[in-house]
Amino acid sequence: MHVLPYKDVPENKVERDDVKDVTMRVAAGPDQGAPNFTMRVFTVRPGGHTPHHHHPYEHEIFFHAGRGEVEYEGEVRPVSAGHVAYVAPDAVHQIRNTGSEDLVFICVVPNGI
Amino acid sequence: MHVLPYKDVPENKVERDDVKDVTMRVAAGPDQGAPNFTMRVFTVRPGGHTPHHHHPYEHEIFFHAGRGEVEYEGEVRPVSAGHVAYVAPDAVHQIRNTGSEDLVFICVVPNGI
Repeated sequence: MHVLPYKDVPENKVERDDVKDVTMRVAAGPDQGAPNFTMRVFTVRPGGHTPHHHHPYEHEIFFHAGRGEVEYEGEVRPVSAGHVAYVAPDAVHQIRNTGSEDLVFICVVPNGI
Repeated sequence: MHVLPYKDVPENKVERDDVKDVTMRVAAGPDQGAPNFTMRVFTVRPGGHTPHHHHPYEHEIFFHAGRGEVEYEGEVRPVSAGHVAYVAPDAVHQIRNTGSEDLVFICVVPNGI
């Protein structure tokens, strides 16, 4: 049974020039035999951000903790724990921590990206 | 931009004989144009439970709030906010609220189920 606190999942720093203070945990996906999609848990430290980028697949996002903002196709929207977000394929987007605590969110992507 | 608190998503009671005090919100999916999968937010009231069932598709689950337990192929594991769970296709499973507050979890499924 793959049931565990997300903090027990191995945490890896996202190493990209356009990313600041972000880690990723793969909560469920191909390693568990999942045929279709992968659930990742991201932690963005205060002042950190994900890349300002786009890609040909979608994101489905749930904000578990903290405060931040989503930039989406040039528009900015504040988010906090309990917000959901959909990022369409090819939409330019970025997530930024604007708070004083870690921003923790779930981001689901198709397998094989 | 589809970015909003999950509580602003329309909430529907899950009407099944084997379900007790559960609601579902479709946070992101085909209505937003998502090609592959759907993120739902479930709220289980204290004492409530999801069906004890199985189906040919997977679940990827994140527990956002509350306390409960997952039964999976006859084994039971306690869960609370921040736990993740993977349910394989055809595995028998049930989620039960064993706490005094709402149990809120995200459950992702393939489209077209």
